[in-house]
Amino acid sequence: MPPLRSWFSIPRGSHFSLANIPFGIVSTSSNKSQRVAVAIGDHALDLEAFAANNGFSALSTIQPHQAVFSEPSLNAFAALGRPIHSVVRKYIQSVFAENTDFPNVLKNNSALQTQALLPLKEVQCHLPFKIGDYTDFFVGMNHAYNCGVMFRGPANALNPNYKHLPVGYHGRASSVVPSGTPIRRPHGQFLPNPSSEEKAPVYAPINRLDYELELGAFVCKPNKMGEPVPIGEAEDNLFGLVMLNDWSARDVQSWEYIPLGPFNAKNFGTSISTWVVLMDALEPFKVKGIENDKEVLPYLKQKGDKTVYDIQLKVDLKTNPGNLSTVANSNGRHLLWSFPQCLAHHTSTGCNLQTGDLLGSGTISGTSPEEHGCLLERTEGGKKSIKIGNEERVFLKDGDEVTFTGVCGADEEALVGFGTVTGRIEPALNLGH
Amino acid sequence: MPPLRSWFSIPRGSHFSLANIPFGIVSTSSNKSQRVAVAIGDHALDLEAFAANNGFSALSTIQPHQAVFSEPSLNAFAALGRPIHSVVRKYIQSVFAENTDFPNVLKNNSALQTQALLPLKEVQCHLPFKIGDYTDFFVGMNHAYNCGVMFRGPANALNPNYKHLPVGYHGRASSVVPSGTPIRRPHGQFLPNPSSEEKAPVYAPINRLDYELELGAFVCKPNKMGEPVPIGEAEDNLFGLVMLNDWSARDVQSWEYIPLGPFNAKNFGTSISTWVVLMDALEPFKVKGIENDKEVLPYLKQKGDKTVYDIQLKVDLKTNPGNLSTVANSNGRHLLWSFPQCLAHHTSTGCNLQTGDLLGSGTISGTSPEEHGCLLERTEGGKKSIKIGNEERVFLKDGDEVTFTGVCGADEEALVGFGTVTGRIEPALNLGH
Repeated sequence: MPPLRSWFSIPRGSHFSLANIPFGIVSTSSNKSQRVAVAIGDHALDLEAFAANNGFSALSTIQPHQAVFSEPSLNAFAALGRPIHSVVRKYIQSVFAENTDFPNVLKNNSALQTQALLPLKEVQCHLPFKIGDYTDFFVGMNHAYNCGVMFRGPANALNPNYKHLPVGYHGRASSVVPSGTPIRRPHGQFLPNPSSEEKAPVYAPINRLDYELELGAFVCKPNKMGEPVPIGEAEDNLFGLVMLNDWSARDVQSWEYIPLGPFNAKNFGTSISTWVVLMDALEPFKVKGIENDKEVLPYLKQKGDKTVYDIQLKVDLKTNPGNLSTVANSNGRHLLWSFPQCLAHHTSTGCNLQTGDLLGSGTISGTSPEEHGCLLERTEGGKKSIKIGNEERVFLKDGDEVTFTGVCGADEEALVGFGTVTGRIEPALNLGH
Repeated sequence: MPPLRSWFSIPRGSHFSLANIPFGIVSTSSNKSQRVAVAIGDHALDLEAFAANNGFSALSTIQPHQAVFSEPSLNAFAALGRPIHSVVRKYIQSVFAENTDFPNVLKNNSALQTQALLPLKEVQCHLPFKIGDYTDFFVGMNHAYNCGVMFRGPANALNPNYKHLPVGYHGRASSVVPSGTPIRRPHGQFLPNPSSEEKAPVYAPINRLDYELELGAFVCKPNKMGEPVPIGEAEDNLFGLVMLNDWSARDVQSWEYIPLGPFNAKNFGTSISTWVVLMDALEPFKVKGIENDKEVLPYLKQKGDKTVYDIQLKVDLKTNPGNLSTVANSNGRHLLWSFPQCLAHHTSTGCNLQTGDLLGSGTISGTSPEEHGCLLERTEGGKKSIKIGNEERVFLKDGDEVTFTGVCGADEEALVGFGTVTGRIEPALNLGH
């Protein structure tokens, strides 16, 4: 399919081509109220302003629901369901198309262009959803294997359940923050000498601060408590994807996680990219995930073999002196279980998911060290440093800025990208105790 | 201190004596809107109606905030802070006192009595808070020890971290439900023959359905992300306590929980009692918890040695044929860590807690089998059945109703009780796959 061409100037290589149309929540200095927008090239189209000026006059389906675009989160829009997301995206594509059938809506309406097309650099992006519950999975099998080797050796690297169910745990919703939010180095309780026989923990600023390269999926359609979502319907319950950085305190994690899993090691901050790429936009990039050599139970068996996405993922690390290095290249295909499988499993006991709930994939690593999605793997548990210009890192230092980039496609005029998710490490507080 | 006497008839033995004044959310058949009330004897005092009819005319502190009583959750009232909760409770006690200084507010105002004093049996109680995040701890040391013995033997029953930090994990907020909500037996993935070498899981209705006797604490005062709450301030961030039943699917739990902790085994339903007992009301019942023989780090060191509460806890099991037996008697004192310590630890990495967040204690067991707070412990992992009349149980059957009761004090005219939290097991759905 040739790329959709637009009358509007969309820079070559933009993540936000006409093939994308991701949704987000924005505000501006002249209008502080948070509202719904889509990203197009270097601009955001303010859908509140667009709707208020008859932008949707040709789309009768959305007219009774236009108040959703004035909401400070995507929850109300997402709750309308996949068919509505689909027609709204297609309609916006048609409004921007070179030979649009609706030239008077925006193409020939310079007043509305001025009002509703906001340069991205003048826009502040907010958390796209009001998140009820956040669940983090562990379905990046290469990451699970590499971590398992470190802790238990190659023979027992993956637990017996790993290929039978998408392993996951409940995360912390309150500390999910939008890209750009600084992350303060936490204090935490950990063992300064983990190998020592004497288990004498300290409470101090942590040393082993790490990022984790993940994807996140937002739920649109809720299910009732007690009623599992069949695998065949699970994808329809998803709104779209973001990139997610599951910041981790490794020294806290290794001391606390037995027997109930990671807790304080993960709840001090989780960053997400702010433009949510719709499931529809990702559809052309579906690929096979990692092959599962175990027989999967019927409630997790997905039709077709393309269940995950070919998303090129990259991790850049910029130090305070200004050295910059790409420390990982990975891909959204490196998953053993898809998000629909994760959702079907999550609801398999009848757990009710709600509009705006967030599911994380777990760290996404390829097989080679250059494809490892966190420093724990990359440095083999802190044993091998990596070069960032003339500096070295095993874990993150104060002032380090970590940026993930994710994009689908190769055609520079039709990229479906996520933009970036970034966060900079601030020094620990002086707690005075 | 002699019990407070009232002009209003409060039955002897009521959990809701004048010494208590717990807060909740109610609706009635004639007024379906959910609103704030307190429980007094066999009645609820509707605080929306009370406020609207000048009930708070003598309490200037609350007057600018009276809209909080029309809210469908306690979040707005709780957010006003402990000093306000304290004066409102004391004022309501004084309005009901035998020789009240405010006789015209309610004692001599039969119209308002008719309007605002609702018989509890005509009131529907709802979830008291809009819960952002729910965290479950594991600080009932006897329970942790007994479970540890089952899995690892007595020498390694408690993990090395157990006495250094309150072990906890993130739970599922969406499936926290008020007392009385039926709990459907979940399907789940588990090993039908866990001892077999071959790990061949099934997806089927679970067999090992259990309750867990816990207390829950609601957060009133939020803390900012990145800013730990000092231990000396932690109790002021708590609104009050409820009883909590952490329904558990033991067959799912044993298969799924390594390495990231319990997930689907716990997220299908958590029941709480609906009247929240304020921290002030519990103050006279403070006692020492379980002694910690390890040196506790300063950020967890609480002043004074009375940090938990003497709450008499009881578990009743009623079967479908109508047999009834008390299957456990336990006490709120059987905790190694207090809720303020749990809160200080939870925020120690800077995790932000919000008004309405819920913290669970973990199962509270005494040392003898009759004091065990769950069937897993009581039946030694399903090996020893218990008698319920002429029936036997190892785990819960369909139709079983589990009721927890909790109360502080011995003076029948001054009890500070929680009422009950109850739930009945419904048969599994027929999923047709």
